[in-house]
Order: sequence, then C-alpha cells, then structure tokens
Amino acid sequence: MSEVFPLKDPVRHIIWKGDRLRVLDQRLLPRRISYIDCRTPAGVAKATKDMALRGAPLIGCAAAFGMALAAKKGGKRALPEAAALLKSARPTAVNLACAVDRMLEAARFCPNGDLFAHLAGAALAFYEEDILANQTMAKLGASLMHRGSRVITHCNAGALATAGLGTAVGIIRYAHHLGKIEHVYPCETRPYLQGSRLTLWELMRAKVPATLITDNMAAHVMKTQRISAVIVGSDRIAANADVCNKIGTYGLAILARHHGIPFIVAAPATTVDFMTPDGSAIPIEERSASEVLEIHGRPIAPAGARARHPAFDVTPHELVTAIVTEKGIVRPVNGRNLKRIVLGKK
Amino acid sequence: MSEVFPLKDPVRHIIWKGDRLRVLDQRLLPRRISYIDCRTPAGVAKATKDMALRGAPLIGCAAAFGMALAAKKGGKRALPEAAALLKSARPTAVNLACAVDRMLEAARFCPNGDLFAHLAGAALAFYEEDILANQTMAKLGASLMHRGSRVITHCNAGALATAGLGTAVGIIRYAHHLGKIEHVYPCETRPYLQGSRLTLWELMRAKVPATLITDNMAAHVMKTQRISAVIVGSDRIAANADVCNKIGTYGLAILARHHGIPFIVAAPATTVDFMTPDGSAIPIEERSASEVLEIHGRPIAPAGARARHPAFDVTPHELVTAIVTEKGIVRPVNGRNLKRIVLGKK
Repeated sequence: MSEVFPLKDPVRHIIWKGDRLRVLDQRLLPRRISYIDCRTPAGVAKATKDMALRGAPLIGCAAAFGMALAAKKGGKRALPEAAALLKSARPTAVNLACAVDRMLEAARFCPNGDLFAHLAGAALAFYEEDILANQTMAKLGASLMHRGSRVITHCNAGALATAGLGTAVGIIRYAHHLGKIEHVYPCETRPYLQGSRLTLWELMRAKVPATLITDNMAAHVMKTQRISAVIVGSDRIAANADVCNKIGTYGLAILARHHGIPFIVAAPATTVDFMTPDGSAIPIEERSASEVLEIHGRPIAPAGARARHPAFDVTPHELVTAIVTEKGIVRPVNGRNLKRIVLGKK
Repeated sequence: MSEVFPLKDPVRHIIWKGDRLRVLDQRLLPRRISYIDCRTPAGVAKATKDMALRGAPLIGCAAAFGMALAAKKGGKRALPEAAALLKSARPTAVNLACAVDRMLEAARFCPNGDLFAHLAGAALAFYEEDILANQTMAKLGASLMHRGSRVITHCNAGALATAGLGTAVGIIRYAHHLGKIEHVYPCETRPYLQGSRLTLWELMRAKVPATLITDNMAAHVMKTQRISAVIVGSDRIAANADVCNKIGTYGLAILARHHGIPFIVAAPATTVDFMTPDGSAIPIEERSASEVLEIHGRPIAPAGARARHPAFDVTPHELVTAIVTEKGIVRPVNGRNLKRIVLGKK
C-alpha cells in the first residue's frame, strides 16, 4: 500500500476545527449543503441521533472528536459521562462504542499533559485509520469483481458514511476505476432514502453509471439485468459473522441467494464485535414511525396510521458470500474465519 | 351464495351517471376525495393511464363503461377505435382487454335497437359480476386462514382496485370478520405508495388492525412477527399459472418461500389469460422515471438522475402456494389445475 491511492473523495462531511466539529447535515442532501457546528459531546450525540450525521464508520469518527471536545471543556472527569452519552446516541452500529472506548483507552495513556491535544490527536488518527481501511477494502473487494460487473447496493456505505471512499461504494468506485463496473443499481432505501439521496449522488459525482431502483425492484432487476453481485456495508458484525445492516439488507441477501448472486459485505475491523455472539444479540434500533409515515414533512398515509420502523436487520452469515475487511477477505463466512482474518488468530 | 354477504364497502370509486362515468381520483387519497368526470372513452383511457383510476379489475369495469360511452356518441362504428384506445391505456392488466372484448361481443348480440342502453347494461352486469366474484373469493380465501393469522399484503388489491370488496383485501376483511386475522402488515409499495395511501386507508376504515411497513422491511417482519401468509392480487395470470402483479410481488414470493410462509394470490377469472403461455410473454409496463425520482412533486434524487420504473413483475407459479378465484382454489399451482378450476375442464 505504498503507492498513492488513485481516487480521491472531495466530500467534506466532518471537519475538525480545533474547538468544534463541523458536521454536514446529510438529511438535506442532495438539495442543500449545510453544516452544523458541534461544540460539545452532546452536540455530536444529537447530530448522530437526528441522523444529520450517519454511517457506522463516520459516526464512530465523529464520536472520537466528541470525546476530545469533552476533554476540552471538562478534562478527564468529563469523559465517562460523554462516553455514555455518545454511545447511547444510536444503539446498533458498534463503531460508535468502539471509537469511544478507543478514546477512553487513549486517555489512560495520558496521565499528565494536555489531555485535549492528546485526544484530538487520537481522534485524527482514528479518522485517518478509517481512510486507509477504506482504501485497502476497495482494493481487496475490487479483486472479487470481474469485467462487466453489474452491481446492486443498498443504503449508503460510501464516502458519506466513512472517513474515506466508503466501504461498499469504495469497492464499487475502485472496481470502476479498474474498468470492471458496467452498471450500478442503488436501492433507494426507504424510509430515509440514503440510496437515492446519498449513494446515487456519490456515484454520479464519480461518473459511475448508475440507475436508481426502488427497494421492491431488486428481485426483478436481479432476474432481468444480469446482476453480478450485491455489495453492502455493515453496522455491526457479530462473532459468528452474522451481519447487521440497514433494514432491507436481509431481504436482499435472500434474493441474491435465490438468484445465485454473490452477496458481499464490506466493513472495517471496527465494525466487528466479538463481544456479540450472534445476530440475535444485536440491538435493533426502532426509530419513530413518523419517519415512515411522512416524506418531506407531508403524510403518505391516513391520519392516525401506525407504522413499524426497525432501522436495521440481521443477515445470517450463511447468506453472505464474503466479508471484505482491511485485514483481509473472510470467505467462507463463519465465526472461525472472521476471527482468523480480523484478529489474525487461528 | 344465497345468503346476504355480511360486509359492505362504502367506497364510491366509479359511479355510472347514465351519460358519464364519475371516477374517484385515487392519486389524491387519502388526503382528498375528488372526482373526474369521463364523458368519452378517451376520458376513461386518460384516467386509467394517469393512474387516477387503478386496480386491474376496476380498470376493466371502467373500460366497459367507456365502451358504452363510445356507443352513445358514435354508435357501432365508434367501437373499434374506442376498444383500441382503452386497451392501450395500460398494457399489463388483462382485465382491461377482457372487459373491452366482452363489450365488443355484447355489441354483436345487439344487431338493432338501442346499442348504448344495451352496452350500459352489459357494463353494469360486468361490474356486478366482479362484486360477486370478490365475495366468493373472500369466502374461499378465508377458508385457507387459521385463527390468529398475521398477514402481509402488497399494493392495493382492495375495494379501490375492484368493483367489490377487493381480492386480497377482500379475503383479509372476510377472514377478519370471522375472527381469524390478528394483524395485517401492508407494504407501502413504492413508488406509488398504494399500500400506505390506499390499502392502509381501507383497513383502518374496516377496523382491521394494521401496521404499515416499508417494502424493504418485509423479510425482517417475516422472520420476527410470525407471519402466517402473504396475500396479493394479480394483473395477469398466464396459462402456466405464472403471476404478474405490482412490482415487488416476485421478491415477496421468494422471501415467503425462504421463510416457509404460504404465498396466496387472489384474482377473478377475468385476470387469467390463457392466450399468454407463461410469465415471460406478459408485457411489463415501464412507466416514467420521474414517478420514482419525485415524491409529492419534489425530487428525492440528484438532478439528472436516472431511474428504472417497471410497474410489474412476474412470480413463477412454483413460488405460489394457492391461487384463489371465484371458480375455486387452484392448488397446487400449475397450468393444468388453473385450467381445470377456471375453465372447468379436465
């Protein structure tokens, strides 16, 4: 990995300003570029909870800066409360907890001296680690693609969800750079429309040929459009390699299996949670029904209607063809191989 | 079927006024009740094409009245052109062609006399036939349900899609009347949101407990909510029993099979097209990309984005557990049994 990585991403989604974290409000994309200034851990937690800031790896990076902001204001004594606040902002993505724990650990190694400067440096290092992880995943994942690939992706596992080029979208963009991608079909990903608002926006900026589909078109497109692979990101991977990701992922994995299409998950090692034995132990965030019942603030259902809004689902590892991490490719997908690749253990 | 059917539906979606057909504009539901007056076959065709008027059986009924309107204005000589116009309004649902052909046949049996009155009577008969077909399907389909059933449905195969109580929703409502339905999950059905706008509205009016889900939640709900059956309607059933229905149906059938859940299709005999050998011969209407790229007239994707919009998909008969028609239940689902039940032939 000594050569310069050939793709850049100009998305400025979180910007460390030394005394605050500027956060791109992703809810307004692609209509408007607007930033929120977070000066406290509570500000970062709120932006995360409200989904202005989203994407499992990115909310981890932002939380790391949130811990630095806590140290700036309240020193070491402020860290436990900030840690609890940030971790509780969203329950499913484990990168958040991983980043916060990393910062608590960093604080332990700074008994004296400027704790804020130390933690800000650690947060930047965590951020840059994610950029490099993206690049490595992009190369590894692209090695699984053949020329003329036609790919389905879901939600946004792109530059907007990470510090770098993205996980799933990083692979797609790098494979496209190598001339291997013929077409991409992002699923719109209701209710938040991350596919149409964010992934399609990234692909169009990168000049990757892409056509939007509604989530319910995936099976028809798999049958009629010679799809080569489904590539998605993840919010948490359990010890047995079950994959938690945006709602709809589990259905796509079943459809891919039915059509004999490889189902590939891309996620950095920070997404793997060896403390969670299997998918059934992953807490699935249930968000507000109003996010399903309204679009652009206008109702799409009768007044008084009820709706479910599980934000994630779990794909059993048996349905996953390969997990691409920056440590290597896990295949066949099972707990033993996951441990071997991610922890380097037999 | 001599006893009085216990459920009524107060939806007034098409109203024959003697000189015109009043059509409820379903695009505005559930926000507004507004009607369009169709005085010509072209008016009926336009309301159908624009989806103010929708639902395979209902657009058949409306087309029958459209043929009567043609006779009113231009007599027998106006019928061929009106027939071509009405049939071309939407290509996939075969009920439309079936209704128009029925009216052409009725016209042949009226060599002299008042052709308009004759065709208006034939259209009313066609309409009433559909009401009775709905009632019979409701009873037959409900016999397949057990107490405590938890059902997923897709799109709108209800009162708004037919002359009567609906096909899939008719079964659900009758089974609910018998105390067999515990809960219904309508899929919202992007891009037109017939599930959230229409089916949920009907279920709430009928006091059937229902919770809206986005299309991509179906797999997660099947795994976690003890779903007993998926019940949908159809726009065309081929001779080999392949089922064409709203986009997303094929995916639901695969997900149901994966979870061991019965997948039931309800459709009147007018939906069966023995001239279409199998699903691959059914023309799939490709509608405008703007219907995917905009919601409430506002874009949900970047300017210049491309989208697919196949309005239907085909579910191979192997994935269908039973087809409920007013002539009987087709099970196992194959071309031989379909012919035996619908045509009464061995």
